[in-house]
Amino acid sequence: MHVVVPFAATDPKTRLASVLTSAERSTLARAMLADVLTATVEVGTEPTVVSTAPLDLDTLSLEATIRDAVSVTVDDRPLTEAVNARLPPNHDDAPTAVIMADLALATPDALVTLFSRDADVAIAPGRSGGTNALVVSHPDFRVDYHGASYLDHCEIAREVGAGLETVDSFRLSTDIDEPDDLAEILIHDTETDRAPACLRELGFALETRDGRVGVARFEETTRE
Amino acid sequence: MHVVVPFAATDPKTRLASVLTSAERSTLARAMLADVLTATVEVGTEPTVVSTAPLDLDTLSLEATIRDAVSVTVDDRPLTEAVNARLPPNHDDAPTAVIMADLALATPDALVTLFSRDADVAIAPGRSGGTNALVVSHPDFRVDYHGASYLDHCEIAREVGAGLETVDSFRLSTDIDEPDDLAEILIHDTETDRAPACLRELGFALETRDGRVGVARFEETTRE
Repeated sequence: MHVVVPFAATDPKTRLASVLTSAERSTLARAMLADVLTATVEVGTEPTVVSTAPLDLDTLSLEATIRDAVSVTVDDRPLTEAVNARLPPNHDDAPTAVIMADLALATPDALVTLFSRDADVAIAPGRSGGTNALVVSHPDFRVDYHGASYLDHCEIAREVGAGLETVDSFRLSTDIDEPDDLAEILIHDTETDRAPACLRELGFALETRDGRVGVARFEETTRE
Repeated sequence: MHVVVPFAATDPKTRLASVLTSAERSTLARAMLADVLTATVEVGTEPTVVSTAPLDLDTLSLEATIRDAVSVTVDDRPLTEAVNARLPPNHDDAPTAVIMADLALATPDALVTLFSRDADVAIAPGRSGGTNALVVSHPDFRVDYHGASYLDHCEIAREVGAGLETVDSFRLSTDIDEPDDLAEILIHDTETDRAPACLRELGFALETRDGRVGVARFEETTRE
């Protein structure tokens, strides 16, 4: 299993700009990347970060055993092209998994569930029809991340005759794009993950409003 | 396994009021209830709808075999009280499952995953820290649906010494509360479910905006 983790290294997570500065968004994006890489290595894979710009892995504070299993390649093409260049070209090739770098809730258990599917294409959809993680073993399947990518990928699989399985995972369905998503990181906090620690350091905490849980920022000392 | 499906029979789904009339919200709520009941019966249980007001099951258009397995009881107390009155009082009692009536994406597979856990308390969290579905077999555990109920339930389980397992399911994490949630019903449509058919009849269809998928309403003939 080849594991690819696409990473937007420059000005990431722009939809969080209302609550985080550019530097803070970069810090959070790297913390989430580190958590995703750790989970993928813990299930026995050696992931490749496909980064839009050079990335120094030593800045991610990975444990040494995790760090040694990760490699980086720079590819500044749009996401769809960069991923399609890495999908298996032949039936006998190992499957390729594509895991988004902002799946802050990804756990080894959730990844094992995804990786153990026997379908030509296995997809863990996100909310609003995104494709948060997928595994491709069919040589004719190609991705298209524009628009409603989950439904498009279902259609592409049908067109090329690839069997498709949808993986039912809340953790893999949760990508961190918008301010409301930050609550999920703190609700499903673990002691070892970097993303919740990063948010807490930035002054965020859970807050209940109107019977729902969101985040509030109680310290803004690090804002530019 | 006792299965309880709480149902707000009067003026349901008020947070959808910006896109659906009261009558339409009632229609959609009953379609989702019918889908949830069908999934629960298909895994071999005989669910009880705990309704805040009298409910005629014959208005739900259930298949006869499903209809025969469902019963209704009226309990107009707040949700927390109505559920706590139905949790197992003794260690030897059968576990009680509580499944919210707006889990429109619930499938038999997702429910089997929930029902097969061996923990004292198993919870399928929703977004924003809700408790969308749970199974209780510990006699001292009680629910509290106010606020961040998932985190509160984790704490209550610790307090009474009950082992807790979190069930990782996107389908069970998806409750239909707000207009954006309606897209999930259409994205993960099945041919037999009532909720997507109901939305289509009301004129809703998927629409891609800004690279994300939402719903738009193209016919408003049924609006009051």
